[in-house]
Amino acid sequence: MSSLTNAPDQASQAVQNWLNKRDPFSAWLGVIIEEIRPGYCRLRLPVRPEMLNGFGMLHGGVTFAAADTAFSIACNTHGRQSVGLSVTIDYLEPGQPGDVITVEATEESLKHRVGVYQVGIRNQNGLRLAIFKGTAYRTSIENS
Amino acid sequence: MSSLTNAPDQASQAVQNWLNKRDPFSAWLGVIIEEIRPGYCRLRLPVRPEMLNGFGMLHGGVTFAAADTAFSIACNTHGRQSVGLSVTIDYLEPGQPGDVITVEATEESLKHRVGVYQVGIRNQNGLRLAIFKGTAYRTSIENS
Amino acid sequence: MSSLTNAPDQASQAVQNWLNKRDPFSAWLGVIIEEIRPGYCRLRLPVRPEMLNGFGMLHGGVTFAAADTAFSIACNTHGRQSVGLSVTIDYLEPGQPGDVITVEATEESLKHRVGVYQVGIRNQNGLRLAIFKGTAYRTSIENS
Amino acid sequence: MSSLTNAPDQASQAVQNWLNKRDPFSAWLGVIIEEIRPGYCRLRLPVRPEMLNGFGMLHGGVTFAAADTAFSIACNTHGRQSVGLSVTIDYLEPGQPGDVITVEATEESLKHRVGVYQVGIRNQNGLRLAIFKGTAYRTSIENS
Repeated sequence: MSSLTNAPDQASQAVQNWLNKRDPFSAWLGVIIEEIRPGYCRLRLPVRPEMLNGFGMLHGGVTFAAADTAFSIACNTHGRQSVGLSVTIDYLEPGQPGDVITVEATEESLKHRVGVYQVGIRNQNGLRLAIFKGTAYRTSIENS
Repeated sequence: MSSLTNAPDQASQAVQNWLNKRDPFSAWLGVIIEEIRPGYCRLRLPVRPEMLNGFGMLHGGVTFAAADTAFSIACNTHGRQSVGLSVTIDYLEPGQPGDVITVEATEESLKHRVGVYQVGIRNQNGLRLAIFKGTAYRTSIENS
Repeated sequence: MSSLTNAPDQASQAVQNWLNKRDPFSAWLGVIIEEIRPGYCRLRLPVRPEMLNGFGMLHGGVTFAAADTAFSIACNTHGRQSVGLSVTIDYLEPGQPGDVITVEATEESLKHRVGVYQVGIRNQNGLRLAIFKGTAYRTSIENS
Repeated sequence: MSSLTNAPDQASQAVQNWLNKRDPFSAWLGVIIEEIRPGYCRLRLPVRPEMLNGFGMLHGGVTFAAADTAFSIACNTHGRQSVGLSVTIDYLEPGQPGDVITVEATEESLKHRVGVYQVGIRNQNGLRLAIFKGTAYRTSIENS
């Protein structure tokens, strides 16, 4: 995955092709990858009607899934398969129908076996909807 | 929601109708409600191909969404609108294609403004896949 | 540490000696180890006046420290040095001056590199004060 | 507490007097308050020999307690009694004997009933030792 970069249209298309093949759930949600570099991932997700909860707001599971995808991509940028161990999310403001959320994962710490990431989730107006923190275990298996 | 109970087919159908109307994302995922009573919810989710991640395993976002749904239903069984504040999830074993996961939310603590819930996620063999803990804020608004 | 057991006075004294030498902070707090076996630790802590917070209740940091000690002992019972990675605590009820709290750590999951533990904190009446969940990384270094 | 400010020696002394009286555990640990303003607290803690764990490193409970103190002060700066509900901490690097740690709590979100805070813990060289995130419930009781 390390060859994925913030790049012109051709590369962006390659990233989406990769996502479609490699992360069916994120593709199904409609996640749009915007930038990937070592220890970092930013993506966008338009909120669709089927993503709402019982109060007519964005379902917390969708917010989490988008953040989890960015976390997973960011921690897999270093060439070794990494899996989430422990994750927390705090909901600050409810997402609304029609929102387009932006999710940004940054690396807080990278050690031999463990990486820690902060993920921010904002709406199209920059309002922070949630904060997510994930700890990943880095296996010895190389990413193909 | 307090009238929803673990009941025969007619009632179960009513619960699913309610879910379809009230929680579009959970219905979209294919969540099957098995039992709801005060402070408790148990549901099932069959893992479909579009729910996998880049490693061919169950996407953490799906596991989380199923758990979050059970948490949300359990904390809304007391007649007041309740929203998730802070949630943690630990992944113990990867879910597999074809699994049917069972999610069970139980109430750890219920106070005037705050409820705390533990949610266990197991596969069809009883293997625990993840543990989820959620803190909910209880508003003054009555559930309709 | 695997030789430490729930045992008569002589062994208990050995455990406390070990704690005094090996975990100065817990000894300083006044932690009393009650039982240690593989994947498990139970301890007691009498609440002293210097353990209160600004509201005259038990300081959350003390509750946490007692739980963290039980977690650390439990995850180090398998012969390999293990360190806490990520921990969460939920406060359910405030501890009071004069309370004697009991802390019990149990193993939820043990894999090659990672262990997950739940820790319950109760007062002398069995009232649950807090719940703690810890994820430990298991190094290759043998415990001496 | 809102009158406490980052101020010259006289005010600093007042803050320490307040801490001694109001937060016996933090005073006992030796916490030194450096700055308090609305939604913010920064403090220092010199690591003493009795603060070590079984591996000769800074006990996680001490790191947590220092962070919890900064969190508690920051969320109580708005004039209403606030209590911690749910907290997470990730340990990035072990603290060492002789370290002087700096803890900085900042407000991520402040709503009517809930505040969310991030707390960073660094050593004297700026190395980040841990990250802490806390959710507080804001009561209706005014701080005296």
